[in-house]
Amino acid sequence: MAKAMARKLKDFNPTNCAVTYCMNIIGGKWKPVIIHLLRNGQNRYSLMQKGMPEASKQTLTNQLRELEADGIITRETFAGSPPRVEYHITPLGASLLPIIDAMRTWGKGQMNTGE
Amino acid sequence: MAKAMARKLKDFNPTNCAVTYCMNIIGGKWKPVIIHLLRNGQNRYSLMQKGMPEASKQTLTNQLRELEADGIITRETFAGSPPRVEYHITPLGASLLPIIDAMRTWGKGQMNTGE
Repeated sequence: MAKAMARKLKDFNPTNCAVTYCMNIIGGKWKPVIIHLLRNGQNRYSLMQKGMPEASKQTLTNQLRELEADGIITRETFAGSPPRVEYHITPLGASLLPIIDAMRTWGKGQMNTGE
Repeated sequence: MAKAMARKLKDFNPTNCAVTYCMNIIGGKWKPVIIHLLRNGQNRYSLMQKGMPEASKQTLTNQLRELEADGIITRETFAGSPPRVEYHITPLGASLLPIIDAMRTWGKGQMNTGE
């Protein structure tokens, strides 16, 4: 129910605002970080967890599902024992990379000047 | 209490990730939209509400307070009857504009191709 509501809210953009549209896709707290980790080849669930220990398992799972539903990432299962699951960025997801890069550049600049 | 927790979480960045750092500042659902509206001169509370009718008053107020606490915007009260309150982007806030621009460009592109 909570998830359904979140997705409903996601599509709610009455002012037809492009910034809102984009935030509806990547505004989830961890989504830019997930995309950034995937881009760097950390494409297994366990690797992503290590890269973002602040996020709970449930949160990571939810964010991955939403990104998959929005066509930003793919989830592929490979046969084996145990089966292996890999996540990859789609071309649509790759089109978000300039935004993630801009965030990263800004964050780096601030972390260097601050503290 | 909820607010205090949110702010605590905000500063939690154990992996020292630049993307996380940036999302801690602008990840709030409406923050990029607020910055975008302020840039376009919609710098009164009532104007911002019109620009983002999806957000509740409480949410807008909270996000404005957090942006002010983080040095991204200023809040200035002008004497008068009734007193007038204006919000403006700080130089630090202006340094986020390339990110907002990238979001806007992406959102526009998607809104044109989709639906």
